This record gives sequence, C-alpha cells and structure tokens, in this order.
Amino acid sequence: METMQDSIYRRDCPSRTVVEALANKWVLYVLAALRRYDRPMRFSELRRLLDGITQKMLTQTLRSLERDGLVRRTVYPTVPPRVEYGLTELGVEAGKLTSAISAWSVEHARQIHSARKDFDERAAMPPQPLP
Amino acid sequence: METMQDSIYRRDCPSRTVVEALANKWVLYVLAALRRYDRPMRFSELRRLLDGITQKMLTQTLRSLERDGLVRRTVYPTVPPRVEYGLTELGVEAGKLTSAISAWSVEHARQIHSARKDFDERAAMPPQPLP
Repeated sequence: METMQDSIYRRDCPSRTVVEALANKWVLYVLAALRRYDRPMRFSELRRLLDGITQKMLTQTLRSLERDGLVRRTVYPTVPPRVEYGLTELGVEAGKLTSAISAWSVEHARQIHSARKDFDERAAMPPQPLP
Repeated sequence: METMQDSIYRRDCPSRTVVEALANKWVLYVLAALRRYDRPMRFSELRRLLDGITQKMLTQTLRSLERDGLVRRTVYPTVPPRVEYGLTELGVEAGKLTSAISAWSVEHARQIHSARKDFDERAAMPPQPLP
C-alpha cells in the first residue's frame, strides 16, 4: 500500500507543489527576514535586506508567498498608499522550517566548504584504477 | 554590530551557498528518499523513485550532494562495477531538515491549495477601489 510519505515523490502529488514552493532560496530568505524582524515590512526594506535580489524576483516571491497564504499583503489608504508584507500564521510555521535550514547552514558552512574543496582537489587528480 | 544571523542575507556570506544548495527541490527529494529507505541506493533506483527527474538532473544533484559531503558515492569492484549513493552523517542531519519540510508540505497541502484557489479567484475579479 502506498503511504502519504511515498506519495511525495510522485509528480501528481498535491504536496509536491508545496515542497517546491518552499524549496527556493528567495522564499527562504523572505520568510527568514520577516520572521527575524517579527513585523510586517515594506517592499523597499526587504529589497535592501536581501542582498542580490532583483525587483522582479522579490515581486514574484512575495506574490507567490501571498498566493500560498504564507504572507499577507496589507495596503494602507495613505497618500501614497503604504503596502506592507507580513507573515500569516501559516507563514510563521513555514518560517520555522526554513529558519532551521538557515541556522544549520551557518553552523555547517565551514565543514561543507571544506568538503567542496576536497572534492574539487580529487576531481582535479587523474582517475585512479579500480582496486 | 552584525550578528551571524544578519549575515545570512549578504551575497558574500559563505553560508549562503549552503542554504542555496539545500533550497532545491531535487536535493530535497534525494535526501528524503535516502533517509526514508535508510540504505545506500543505486542511481536507477533513485531515478525510478523520483518521478519526473531526468537522468541529467539526478546526475547533477548527486554530484552536488557528494561535493557538499552530504552523500557518499561508493564504487564496488564487481563486473560491471556497482555504484551506490548513501547519506553521510552530515547528510543524515541535512535530511532531517528537508524531511521536516516534506512532512509539513503533506500536512498543509490542502490548506495551501485552498489559499491558491482563493487568490486566483480574487485576482480574476475587477480591482476594488481603495476605501
């Protein structure tokens, strides 16, 4: 019998589009930023914070997070209108998962960079014959 | 003062390449598969399991995981040589994080799909005037 866990690998499984929405570096960074500052933020603030993101990518990322119900977009009727992006309850939960990935990456960055260096050095050597 | 947590948002931060290595759907699925079956697997097994992955993407994903020290590639000197991919200790740890994302996605898939449907319906309506 197929369990829920098996079904994650099937292309037609509804949860796969959810995994794939989260498995995106800018989604991770936006969730992490909103979680860390723990308040709604304006587009320009987020853009300044996320070094390297383009206006287009931030727009797409926020729209996709809003569509998924993870981010709430609020328009205040000032002149000019102020627009803020904040986490929904579901977004706070998703943010916990993505923050765990960020924290782990910081903690293991040295080890992983050292593995990469070793790998690249081995790859540069002539191939060894099979024993 | 800048803390470790701030530095995750900077393009030149070493941990960013680690976050970005994990923020990839195929990396998530390969780690999840190896963790779930809890044994080294052959390329062909993984490919069968990960519905929709191409040979090229699986090759690239395994190579990147091996380079990061998350997956160990073992060649057995049989004829023809048997090649197996298994998680390293670091890979088991990373797999716990990515499995948490998969499990959460399964659990909240219905809610997120419903949010998407609502969003798309609102997007199809004419824009509302500001209050």
